Amino acid sequence: MAPADKRSRLVNAAVSLAYRDGFGATSLADIASEAAVPLGNVYYYFKTKDEIGEAIVELRLSQMAAMLQRWDEETSPKDRLYRCIEGVLDNKESLARRGCAIGTFCSELHKVGGAVAAKATGIFSQYLSWLETQFRALGKGKAARGHAVHLLSALQGISLLAHTFHDPSLVTMETRRLKRWVEDL
Amino acid sequence: MAPADKRSRLVNAAVSLAYRDGFGATSLADIASEAAVPLGNVYYYFKTKDEIGEAIVELRLSQMAAMLQRWDEETSPKDRLYRCIEGVLDNKESLARRGCAIGTFCSELHKVGGAVAAKATGIFSQYLSWLETQFRALGKGKAARGHAVHLLSALQGISLLAHTFHDPSLVTMETRRLKRWVEDL
Repeated sequence: MAPADKRSRLVNAAVSLAYRDGFGATSLADIASEAAVPLGNVYYYFKTKDEIGEAIVELRLSQMAAMLQRWDEETSPKDRLYRCIEGVLDNKESLARRGCAIGTFCSELHKVGGAVAAKATGIFSQYLSWLETQFRALGKGKAARGHAVHLLSALQGISLLAHTFHDPSLVTMETRRLKRWVEDL
Repeated sequence: MAPADKRSRLVNAAVSLAYRDGFGATSLADIASEAAVPLGNVYYYFKTKDEIGEAIVELRLSQMAAMLQRWDEETSPKDRLYRCIEGVLDNKESLARRGCAIGTFCSELHKVGGAVAAKATGIFSQYLSWLETQFRALGKGKAARGHAVHLLSALQGISLLAHTFHDPSLVTMETRRLKRWVEDL
């Protein structure tokens, strides 16, 4: 296996285990075993758990950037916002099983604090600015920030409730309401 | 110290440590030390970490019931909903520092699953039924459930964002919007 392959297998394993079990509950040994890389090799790529945390954040940041770029292909800001709401709806089964990958990660990391937590916040900053841009394009001016915060809150909150109740239908219910809200803007 | 005192000191210590550091990161030894109870004594009250988890849920359930009973003293359903929104606003500094005590607890426990996680969901069920009762009293009929889910989602979501950005002003912004929403119903 080439070193780049090994590193990316380790990061992908870390991403799925942190999502499934929580970052704190995932050890370097778990990650090595999931990636089928000898534990001794892991230390060549990542000296500490924090370095794994940073690699997870970097992957999530680039996935988020790619997603926003795809949504930007829609011609109208409303269609972009629909895509974002539909993305959550499409994801309802995973949300009901494990919550939002970003939300649960940030919530967990910020109990502990530190550099990885601060870096993880950047994922939401990126998302929030993108949302704000859409509401500004809809002529919402000074209210754009509040609208962006409202939409991201609602999506995060419904993900948390769907997870807690293990009920994907809550996502269906709330995203329907949010689409109507965007429609009426 | 009387046994009842010791037990309640241990539960209170568990509640604060689980809120501050997360439940998974809190050991029986941490709880014993925070409560100033010898570790050997802890096993008399709680054999396992799960039993501590159940005691935390029971305390949270009774605190929630007491809070809802206080809010029920308001004469109109709208005033009761304002009280609930204002409760979150009053709590904005803690939310920005550590997130919502119930939301972060449920989010963390449901990664692991098990009996304590299932029991913790009961805290939100209780809250959600109470909200639904208020919206039904406002004549919302079949839409009452969706309104309750919307309000609880928004409050949970803004708590998560305030925590992630360590920014209490997000709570001020979103609760203002939610109060207007209730007003316009």
